[in-house]
Amino acid sequence: MKEPSAVADPPAVVDVAMPLPELNRDMEAALLQSEEGADVTFEVGGESFAAHRCVLAARSSVFRAELFGAMKESTAGGGKARVDGVEARAYRALLHFIFTDAVPELDGKDQETSSMAQHLLVAADRYNLERLKLICEDKLCKRIDVSSAVTLALAEQHRCPSLKKACMDFLYSPGNLKAVEATDGFEHLATSCPVILRELIAKLVAL
Amino acid sequence: MKEPSAVADPPAVVDVAMPLPELNRDMEAALLQSEEGADVTFEVGGESFAAHRCVLAARSSVFRAELFGAMKESTAGGGKARVDGVEARAYRALLHFIFTDAVPELDGKDQETSSMAQHLLVAADRYNLERLKLICEDKLCKRIDVSSAVTLALAEQHRCPSLKKACMDFLYSPGNLKAVEATDGFEHLATSCPVILRELIAKLVAL
Repeated sequence: MKEPSAVADPPAVVDVAMPLPELNRDMEAALLQSEEGADVTFEVGGESFAAHRCVLAARSSVFRAELFGAMKESTAGGGKARVDGVEARAYRALLHFIFTDAVPELDGKDQETSSMAQHLLVAADRYNLERLKLICEDKLCKRIDVSSAVTLALAEQHRCPSLKKACMDFLYSPGNLKAVEATDGFEHLATSCPVILRELIAKLVAL
Repeated sequence: MKEPSAVADPPAVVDVAMPLPELNRDMEAALLQSEEGADVTFEVGGESFAAHRCVLAARSSVFRAELFGAMKESTAGGGKARVDGVEARAYRALLHFIFTDAVPELDGKDQETSSMAQHLLVAADRYNLERLKLICEDKLCKRIDVSSAVTLALAEQHRCPSLKKACMDFLYSPGNLKAVEATDGFEHLATSCPVILRELIAKLVAL
């Protein structure tokens, strides 16, 4: 046995193995998926989605105004809230984002993913989820091609300046414009956002 | 104006400035702090804490069993749940962790922070919050000193093997043991965990 010393020896370092943060996992598995304690149900495109109004309200000012305001009475006691104008798959992705901050539905690079990004952008704008809207905008900015006249109409209607710029940059090339002009999407763009055609022409004659 | 080409030109890259994830911020500010939609109130050490039972249940199996089981009726309709054996400041930190996964209360390096880590470890064990318990254990492992007899008793009572090892390693040095043996905490340890003294002696005679 060593002779006792008056000064405390420095302790050895003991490492504690630390699990990763679990908030997002718990919010998804134990709240959204389990539906335990859910107190509001939405009917979207023939599907039902149960959720927790306090979480929806904490994440979206639009949900807050609806669920603790106009729709408070009609959705209390199990009343369903019908949502029109949003696809069920986009609504599912929207709820997943609200509970977890993640959008795995946008991980792909195919046309299906672009379509999801378009629908989700519209839903994000409707529920004032600015970060989700920017995630969709960023995704679509990286997928500009000849089918992007529809994307341009979306960018204009939902105030997405970066996405509008990406589409316009693409169309300023006459080769691209010629290809896009032949698509159905361009007809839609011309009808829904005629002001965009004016902008395009002004830019093209200045080239 | 350039001659149109049949092949679409590659689009220019447009970057979208992306905000950081906001789930933790929203869970703290718009849910826990705002208390909007809160449906349960705890009375702890003379203070009241409002919270959302669905979030508590999603994060802690003990809260789930209590709030959707034994205490469901008594806490419905505004009934308060009294919590004994936990300090108010530790309960506040516990709720903050549940809603955000973060423990800013443990950022310091002073004695006050160690005391908080001890109280929070007890509360984390009580509510089966394993990750919070490990965070407290890790914090305490880095603060082993002559006052750590109390910490050793905690480690033994709440099954924290890393913390117990860190304390024991410290005490195996006779200089340290002599200093710790003179503290009130050692009296407490000897009374509450006599088996630890047996372990210590066995180890010391083998040195």
